[in-house]
Amino acid sequence: MTPNLSSSSAFHDEIRRAIDTKTKPVGSLGRLETLAFQIAALQGTLKPQMKSCRLTIFAGDHGMASAGVSAFPQEVTRQMVFNFLEGGAAANIFANTLDIDVQVVDAGVAGAPILNEALVARRIGAGTANAIVEPAMTASQRDEAIAAGREIGAGEKTDAVCYGEMGIGNTSSASLLAHKILGLPLAPLIGRGTGVDDDTLARKNTLLEEAAKRTADILPAEDALAEYGGFEITMMAGAMLGAASAGKLIIVDGFIAMSAALAAQMLDEKISANLVYGHRSKEVGHGLILKALDADPLLDLGMRLGEGTGALLAWPLVKAAAAMLNDMATFDDAQVSGPA
Amino acid sequence: MTPNLSSSSAFHDEIRRAIDTKTKPVGSLGRLETLAFQIAALQGTLKPQMKSCRLTIFAGDHGMASAGVSAFPQEVTRQMVFNFLEGGAAANIFANTLDIDVQVVDAGVAGAPILNEALVARRIGAGTANAIVEPAMTASQRDEAIAAGREIGAGEKTDAVCYGEMGIGNTSSASLLAHKILGLPLAPLIGRGTGVDDDTLARKNTLLEEAAKRTADILPAEDALAEYGGFEITMMAGAMLGAASAGKLIIVDGFIAMSAALAAQMLDEKISANLVYGHRSKEVGHGLILKALDADPLLDLGMRLGEGTGALLAWPLVKAAAAMLNDMATFDDAQVSGPA
Repeated sequence: MTPNLSSSSAFHDEIRRAIDTKTKPVGSLGRLETLAFQIAALQGTLKPQMKSCRLTIFAGDHGMASAGVSAFPQEVTRQMVFNFLEGGAAANIFANTLDIDVQVVDAGVAGAPILNEALVARRIGAGTANAIVEPAMTASQRDEAIAAGREIGAGEKTDAVCYGEMGIGNTSSASLLAHKILGLPLAPLIGRGTGVDDDTLARKNTLLEEAAKRTADILPAEDALAEYGGFEITMMAGAMLGAASAGKLIIVDGFIAMSAALAAQMLDEKISANLVYGHRSKEVGHGLILKALDADPLLDLGMRLGEGTGALLAWPLVKAAAAMLNDMATFDDAQVSGPA
Repeated sequence: MTPNLSSSSAFHDEIRRAIDTKTKPVGSLGRLETLAFQIAALQGTLKPQMKSCRLTIFAGDHGMASAGVSAFPQEVTRQMVFNFLEGGAAANIFANTLDIDVQVVDAGVAGAPILNEALVARRIGAGTANAIVEPAMTASQRDEAIAAGREIGAGEKTDAVCYGEMGIGNTSSASLLAHKILGLPLAPLIGRGTGVDDDTLARKNTLLEEAAKRTADILPAEDALAEYGGFEITMMAGAMLGAASAGKLIIVDGFIAMSAALAAQMLDEKISANLVYGHRSKEVGHGLILKALDADPLLDLGMRLGEGTGALLAWPLVKAAAAMLNDMATFDDAQVSGPA
């Protein structure tokens, strides 16, 4: 691995100079320039490698789904796992257009274990318990999920990774995690998820308030994950920690992935250097977390699907930013005059 | 060519149904769904072809540059043409990461003709006249530029095209075109272009006001192009008309390309069906034109470079949107349950 010199401000100046001497007005590539800076700082080189990316989708079920917080029945999680394996979901289609491989992890889908060779079987249980009335998982289940995630993340071979999720009911989990970890008010963090109607949204609000009352106002990330997390969210948080330890750039998807990124950063704040926020989800809670973290996602396309779809679509921007730093001519190289 | 059924509302309903039966909550792919709709409507099929794209960069010089409206000297246009031909500019680098071919057109660069086999030589003159004091070009030069553009556009072989530009001084031209064609106030349309300082910005304002006073408050697009256009902008407007006549999707770049798209739409309003706005430039005038046209670009990355860089970065979204319609499984295909 290349040395990480990101703490060196002299090296930071070098990166800035490298970007500013490219044949373009200073600053004219906007967000691509800050992205190129982040990638170079992370890899500790002015010639960062950013050619390959893989998507991992973590699937898990939520006991809260039985309480009626989603527009879709719980079996959809399992059905979508098969859809991912068959290559028919939006994430597969987007990944195909980008030459990105997709792996699917069973982190804890309800029902019997899914027997399929293409599936990465790391299930912690057959879905979490109902977090409205009791902790979603035990401390040892949480630790097991984080450890499984760390192992997946640490084994990543591509330059960047996209992490996506599937789990009916998991916007409820994400809202509760953000509420307990950041101390933001709960109600504004609750949205329509897959598209619940007004009645279901009102029920979702009541149920999540009930769930929140079970515990202290603010919780350490570990406790929040055990109380309100999903197996897929907790394993994704672990994967982010593992991928960061391997020096990978992590493209964060939408609201649910953000709740995993939030927990992961609380467990190890250093990983924020590895995170790129791919897109701004239309799910209202996402904007509130982004604001709290002062984070600025690359894309804003009114999407709210999950599966890593928003992270995938940001990959070409990440690749372009690194290529700019690697391959673009300087004013000197190209004998182009600078500002008069 | 496939029949264009975009006027058929029954067909529009079919497209909407096709998008809504894909395995995702209705509307959850946001802007990608409206993009898929546009592509299907344009090509008149539920299985639109969107695999290939090419970038054409139109280069031309502006007589106004001699008045000092830019931070860069005029010779930079010519130097950048060589940079494009050598593959060292931002547009080349981005295009490489996206497997997009780049062609460069000399629409009217100042100085002697550039002798290079890779260059498409369609020069109308050695730069325009100084539009601050006289028309930028004659009516016959304008017609020649539009005709050359139409021919380039009509000959496009890819499913989509990106059009970019290079021309020192051309934000001044774009500001005047938007002012005269849309009747928007001039001052807010004037920005820092390549990054002029406060003094130069003040001079740019004074000079462009002087230029605007030469003619009537509002001009037909043809007259506006002759009075204030550039050869590169006018040829690009022609290319948009030609590419639209060939049924191509046109990804519009930033502020300058928008002024060409504006003129082209005035010449033939039907081409709006072919236009996708790639990105929102940081150049202030761009936002005002977008607002006037009620247009919503795909990307907003604080970029202001031109060359087609913003259009290029939008290409993966266009490709993904079409792939979604072509390849994504429906709830029936994948045996996934719908909303409860």
